Amino acid sequence: MLDFEFYTPTKVFFGKGKQTQLGKIISDYGYKKIMLQYGKGSIKSNGLYDEIMSSLSKHNIQVVEMGGVEPNPKIEFIREAVKLAKETGVELILAVGGGSVIDAAKYTALGAKADCDIWDFVTGKEKPKAALPTGCVLTIAAAGSEMSASAVVTDLSLNMKRGFTSELNRPLFAICNPELTYTVSPYQTACGITDIMAHTIERYFTPCEPTDLTDRIAESILKSVICSAKVVMKNPSDYDARANIMWASSLSHNNLTGCGRINALPVHQLEHALSGEFDNVSHGAGLAVLFPAWAKYVYMHNISRFAQFARRVWDVDESDDKKAAEKGIEAMAEFFKSIGMPSALREFDIDENCIDRLAELCTFNGKRTIKSVIELGNKEIKDIFYDCLN
Amino acid sequence: MLDFEFYTPTKVFFGKGKQTQLGKIISDYGYKKIMLQYGKGSIKSNGLYDEIMSSLSKHNIQVVEMGGVEPNPKIEFIREAVKLAKETGVELILAVGGGSVIDAAKYTALGAKADCDIWDFVTGKEKPKAALPTGCVLTIAAAGSEMSASAVVTDLSLNMKRGFTSELNRPLFAICNPELTYTVSPYQTACGITDIMAHTIERYFTPCEPTDLTDRIAESILKSVICSAKVVMKNPSDYDARANIMWASSLSHNNLTGCGRINALPVHQLEHALSGEFDNVSHGAGLAVLFPAWAKYVYMHNISRFAQFARRVWDVDESDDKKAAEKGIEAMAEFFKSIGMPSALREFDIDENCIDRLAELCTFNGKRTIKSVIELGNKEIKDIFYDCLN
Repeated sequence: MLDFEFYTPTKVFFGKGKQTQLGKIISDYGYKKIMLQYGKGSIKSNGLYDEIMSSLSKHNIQVVEMGGVEPNPKIEFIREAVKLAKETGVELILAVGGGSVIDAAKYTALGAKADCDIWDFVTGKEKPKAALPTGCVLTIAAAGSEMSASAVVTDLSLNMKRGFTSELNRPLFAICNPELTYTVSPYQTACGITDIMAHTIERYFTPCEPTDLTDRIAESILKSVICSAKVVMKNPSDYDARANIMWASSLSHNNLTGCGRINALPVHQLEHALSGEFDNVSHGAGLAVLFPAWAKYVYMHNISRFAQFARRVWDVDESDDKKAAEKGIEAMAEFFKSIGMPSALREFDIDENCIDRLAELCTFNGKRTIKSVIELGNKEIKDIFYDCLN
Repeated sequence: MLDFEFYTPTKVFFGKGKQTQLGKIISDYGYKKIMLQYGKGSIKSNGLYDEIMSSLSKHNIQVVEMGGVEPNPKIEFIREAVKLAKETGVELILAVGGGSVIDAAKYTALGAKADCDIWDFVTGKEKPKAALPTGCVLTIAAAGSEMSASAVVTDLSLNMKRGFTSELNRPLFAICNPELTYTVSPYQTACGITDIMAHTIERYFTPCEPTDLTDRIAESILKSVICSAKVVMKNPSDYDARANIMWASSLSHNNLTGCGRINALPVHQLEHALSGEFDNVSHGAGLAVLFPAWAKYVYMHNISRFAQFARRVWDVDESDDKKAAEKGIEAMAEFFKSIGMPSALREFDIDENCIDRLAELCTFNGKRTIKSVIELGNKEIKDIFYDCLN
């Protein structure tokens, strides 16, 4: 087990109707003026916006509004939000939405306390020293941004989707009501489930053993998500299954499943290139396509670990490690298909002509490799994308 | 799943030699004058005290020292510490030790910011509004106080051992180095293991279902502790096994295993009377005696849950739920014996004449019942203690 730091200061308010406590929660922290960020307006049509505004108004909290966060939040939006946050002197950034909205709020909170441009944090040119607090009302279980230290942003002018991790990014509070996810479409629900599982599985396979307790916790989260996924695919309004998935989303990415391990996310690194380049690829769907291909490419380098994964997570009953490992990967691929995820890049109209470009994006034009079970350079990355084509 | 709040702000620094970073950690928080609390001096003989003082001195941190915390910390000691903390104006209370030392630090931190006597918090007469920050260097994996919101204190003049829970009790930071537990005796190691398991098992059986994810996490913690216990009983210096147990100690009592469930600890309530009344009973040893008796007394009221516990935690292979439940309880009792824990009150020279008094203590002289699988009043509590006699 490697040394680690564990720090999850986000206060989670989990349960039915919790969004109606928003005003009181913010008021208890002592904040009086906030910026509200949200996506493309679905919260207005489903009534959540009104509930939020009513709760804030009841506690006399002033609101500076900035809707319109896009999936894979764009840096232009955030720059504008930073400017507005500085001008208005808001004290907290509130995100109502999923990972993209929360990530936008995190960058806005960093930018509001910075003199430099926020892209300088992404490139490592500058280090943030402070940030406004952020809070969120979660509406989709997927990214785990509600408790995580990371955030992703896209600069379209550079055609780059990048992540940035800092303890300053951890939200002050997260309001998690599983009922709010009843109306998430089956496809987006499945994308979220895949993302949650990826956050756990990728940490599970980084080269570091033994970590028995962390392993078992990761396996328990995966098993619970798999069971609950089967339930919500049939009944989208099953509270307990939605609750398991939502809580798993937070626990999969708050670093609980990485304690004592290297925290690399190799498949996420491959996928960010994919959904950064192709607008028709949802992050979770991209992960579902890449995961089995990545696993098949690397498993021979740690057969016993993939065999453990197969037996404990996928109930593979097979004494031979190599065969067990293969059956586990097959079970994972079948599971993703069973919840409606794609299994090949062709389904996104992506063909072999795109692969050089994708590999360039993954390696930052040859400037980095992707390390986990094995090191993936340009050649290996291209091999994996080729395997995903059909 | 019940609604819940999850709040674990304690920053954990976990790993080899982490205690040497203590001075830097406190200095980074900006504190310059602290109170150091520890137990009966074992940290002086094993060199830890010198390491601590050297690290603090390197960062020019002034230390007000108050050693001599007893197991089951006494209120007289804490009152004296509060007085000294106020007089000297220390900014943080640092505990170097196990649960008792950390609990003493928590009460000192509450008292230092209060006008009333700290027993008023325990009885509920007053509510604390603030506390000094606390930090700890953990030397025994057991109580989970390093991340928990609770603390226990004993008033010998009233012959009462009581707990008090408040979010103000959560330590600011915890330094957890498994190497520091290599020298903990096999008996105390086993007591700690029992306590860790109790924190998880008791939450597991409170009347609230379904909580699939929390169940599976609890089961994974228990399985890992059981595996690691077998290792450390043979090799007390096995780093990874000690690390699993130490990390499990924190996760078992920071409320991760209670999310969505009622957070009652019925066997702890029985045991506090026992070790509060009898000095020769270690908390963990008392739990080991009481647990099988409690389980046998209540399991018929939730057979399916006890059967799940048996199958998933103790690998009981039995299709009949009642038989499975019984085998699980038997496996648990055998496990506690296998790590050197007592199995009967006679081993502490406690006989039937003590039982009325113990039941009085448990029920606060008939003023409360103990609720979990079923409600335990005076009669039921006496029955359980009788079952523990031999």
